[in-house]
Amino acid sequence: MTTRPKAPDSAPGKGWVERVTLTPPSLEDNSGDADRLARELRRRLSTDAVRIELPLLRRLPDLLRSANWTLRCVVFKETGGWVVTRAMPAGDAPSAAGLAVDLGTTRIAMQLLDLETGDILGERAFDNPQLSVGPDILTRIHYADRSGGLERLNALVIDGFNREIGDLCTETGISSNDVCLVAVAGNTAMTHLFLGLNPHWMVREPYIPAVNAPGILSARNLGLKIAPSARIFAFPNIGAYFGGDLIAGILYSGLHRSPETALLVDVGTNAEVVLGNENWLIACAGAAGPALEGGVSRIGAMAGPGIVDRVAIDPETRAFHLHAIEDEPPRGICGSGFIDLAAQLFLRGMIDIRGKLVPDACGERLKQIKGAPHLVLAPAEESATGEDLTIDQADLDSLIRSKAAMYTILETLTGTVGVAFSDISRFYIAGTFGVFIDPDSAITIGMMPDIDRDRFTPLGNSSLGGAAMLLTSRDALDAVYAVREGITYLELNVNQDFMNRFSAAKFLPHTDASRFPSVAPRISQWT
Amino acid sequence: MTTRPKAPDSAPGKGWVERVTLTPPSLEDNSGDADRLARELRRRLSTDAVRIELPLLRRLPDLLRSANWTLRCVVFKETGGWVVTRAMPAGDAPSAAGLAVDLGTTRIAMQLLDLETGDILGERAFDNPQLSVGPDILTRIHYADRSGGLERLNALVIDGFNREIGDLCTETGISSNDVCLVAVAGNTAMTHLFLGLNPHWMVREPYIPAVNAPGILSARNLGLKIAPSARIFAFPNIGAYFGGDLIAGILYSGLHRSPETALLVDVGTNAEVVLGNENWLIACAGAAGPALEGGVSRIGAMAGPGIVDRVAIDPETRAFHLHAIEDEPPRGICGSGFIDLAAQLFLRGMIDIRGKLVPDACGERLKQIKGAPHLVLAPAEESATGEDLTIDQADLDSLIRSKAAMYTILETLTGTVGVAFSDISRFYIAGTFGVFIDPDSAITIGMMPDIDRDRFTPLGNSSLGGAAMLLTSRDALDAVYAVREGITYLELNVNQDFMNRFSAAKFLPHTDASRFPSVAPRISQWT
Repeated sequence: MTTRPKAPDSAPGKGWVERVTLTPPSLEDNSGDADRLARELRRRLSTDAVRIELPLLRRLPDLLRSANWTLRCVVFKETGGWVVTRAMPAGDAPSAAGLAVDLGTTRIAMQLLDLETGDILGERAFDNPQLSVGPDILTRIHYADRSGGLERLNALVIDGFNREIGDLCTETGISSNDVCLVAVAGNTAMTHLFLGLNPHWMVREPYIPAVNAPGILSARNLGLKIAPSARIFAFPNIGAYFGGDLIAGILYSGLHRSPETALLVDVGTNAEVVLGNENWLIACAGAAGPALEGGVSRIGAMAGPGIVDRVAIDPETRAFHLHAIEDEPPRGICGSGFIDLAAQLFLRGMIDIRGKLVPDACGERLKQIKGAPHLVLAPAEESATGEDLTIDQADLDSLIRSKAAMYTILETLTGTVGVAFSDISRFYIAGTFGVFIDPDSAITIGMMPDIDRDRFTPLGNSSLGGAAMLLTSRDALDAVYAVREGITYLELNVNQDFMNRFSAAKFLPHTDASRFPSVAPRISQWT
Repeated sequence: MTTRPKAPDSAPGKGWVERVTLTPPSLEDNSGDADRLARELRRRLSTDAVRIELPLLRRLPDLLRSANWTLRCVVFKETGGWVVTRAMPAGDAPSAAGLAVDLGTTRIAMQLLDLETGDILGERAFDNPQLSVGPDILTRIHYADRSGGLERLNALVIDGFNREIGDLCTETGISSNDVCLVAVAGNTAMTHLFLGLNPHWMVREPYIPAVNAPGILSARNLGLKIAPSARIFAFPNIGAYFGGDLIAGILYSGLHRSPETALLVDVGTNAEVVLGNENWLIACAGAAGPALEGGVSRIGAMAGPGIVDRVAIDPETRAFHLHAIEDEPPRGICGSGFIDLAAQLFLRGMIDIRGKLVPDACGERLKQIKGAPHLVLAPAEESATGEDLTIDQADLDSLIRSKAAMYTILETLTGTVGVAFSDISRFYIAGTFGVFIDPDSAITIGMMPDIDRDRFTPLGNSSLGGAAMLLTSRDALDAVYAVREGITYLELNVNQDFMNRFSAAKFLPHTDASRFPSVAPRISQWT
């Protein structure tokens, strides 16, 4: 049992377990058992609406008397009131568990938490079972329109949840019936498929989700095999292209609570960026190209054993030093490794400011494969596959487009609100990408602005972290709604201005080298 | 298809069907479909909380587009917000039905209504299937404590509902899936058994129901085979001995809306009385004895064919004129018939002021049966059973106790608030009893106070009527909660004072004959 790592700015806040002691009934105060409990909870929760569902209502009279009128109640705040999802006698016996979920298109991560202590009881991560239908979300959205397609996609994810929850419960000795709160953070399309909503209209102009704020659902309606009264909180979306996972990320980063302006970046096929502080938040999302997404580009891979995540090139000898995860023989390169590689190639003069391979500098590492020049990172005898591990110009061009898009998005967003990069106190990078990326390399290629390296902060799985926070803090739920209501979504208008900025960013690090003062001095000079 | 009879003081009010036309989405307003509908409903309903359940959420995007953004929504007000239980395209197609239920211990009555027009689509009345367990509620309450007893009682009533709803739907051509609102008015114990709550503690000091205000339940949780999202409103109780059926009765009578003080009486094993006006309401319940309850006393019967409901005795000849329902040969006498009989016997000198049979005056009508004198109402050759239809002194004594209890309760309640009987503008009598009773006879025996006869108003099935009002008026729901919150329940303290008043009321019409000035002049004088 581990303690939940503190989020960058976690609030202490009250959790969802409320201990109540009721005055026993008398001839003078003969209100009903449920009415008595609701009255006390209304007082303690400062609300005028408390709902007690039928299954608990049926157990309540005996429970209250056997527990001598003192209970621990799991409560949750719904639209327009509070609900009691579970009640237990007071004492030290195991209470109730909550499940935090990062519902990714590719991977799903879960944490089982003790709702009272916040302790992490167990964790799981597994491939999204919808991968069997299609790796990318657009394929699935189209599949949902087929007869039975939506139902199949929904069943895949719900069945996957039930299987993994079952395993998690077995591992941790928790009864699945004790799981009475679930927080799910996913992108807008995944949230639709999880709820059995057709995402058809969200990919067609004017891009309308079936729902942005699904409210609070119950396990029995969704088919989840946990406590039937358990409440399911799906993080609300801002719109079709800005999902609940990002809201969870904002929550986890604490962006919305900080007096200083900070920035949160989540990089995938889309780059999603949020800028702001306790007073305002502005967000945008834009296509960053596939170069950084595992499994999509020719060589791009998800981080995993044998995947190159660090590259150094000797300034003197131009010898390559590849680090592969778990020190296994290299078999691919992930986004952060590729950024490292590009930065090193540029610093060593092996690619020019356009990102083009420089044959003279690459020397013997350049090989013609199928008529095109490839740069060999690891020769066949050192690689895991028995073939040369290479990149070609197209891979580099793709990376350059991605980094240019990223920078242009950052430039546009900060420019819109008149914030200079130097004013950004913290630069949060979400996900595995954030954990592996070397900010210095990202700056060197001009993907990220040239600010103090120590302002870059990897967040890890901020979507899962935000979901876990929601399970343990009432303030977090209020914050989610406040963030959703308060955020300004900047529709990226891909106009001539944007394209001009994008073109200027397609150089290493930028056509305007003065923006990256720390880069030029480190470029190796060759004679 | 008949139109719902107007309740004595029915408010026009708005119903639960709300027509909404949404602005179609655009790039400028790209909120989600459900968010768009909720926003418009929040505006129209003046609320900040509207819930849309998952099944509707799933259908909504296609429904909105096929209905060209105009819908009829069935809404209902829950604890802390509103819920949409159904949405249909606008137009004249059948909309949605509601079911009003009077959940009696002995009989259950149902009305199926069109929620939009308020038209009654069909009606049913049937024996409470729990009669197979026991005729009286106390037997059932004890049975609920047996292993599986509560579940069996609950299943009996739920299965009965489902069977009768099915028949009602077949008769009227309504799909059971179109029934999306149910209002159930029953006494506290029946409400418990309907919801599957054990009434164990409500019959043990300090008499605590599991719940007084069960809130709004959903059909799927109760096992009702109607629209799964349908909401079930169980009228709240005041306490163990003052149930939701009475609240429905108050609603139907309009007691709570009238500037003039009125009184509502519901007579069964318990006499339940409510006194008040738009400013205040006070209620009490007391044992009235079984004499007036069909099926309990030896000769008492439910109103039905062959049951004597009117009695006249010729002042000259003392000849009996019995009226039996549907003019069939007499086979029993109901409560109102018995009151008529007692009044006539008293006026003709055949019983004295203590209610004792006067042998001289009864003459040949007195017969010894099993050693006790019986008064023959109808000889064997005229009765439906082929045996003499008789009453004996014990029957009369039982009636005297009941009428004395009734009067004492009325005297105590009015006395508590200092209202004279003459100040009561209207005297509502609920149920079948109210329809059949002759106020003049009730006054003659001193059961009801001696006020203008035309102030007595039969209400019919006010419990069913109140439930039907709730289905067609939002104001009615607010009124129910206001009545429940505002009503004062007077605990009848059976102390020496009460017993003294009770003893004084055990005479015909009363020891203090001046309270019944209209009675004395009509007593036949015999020489």
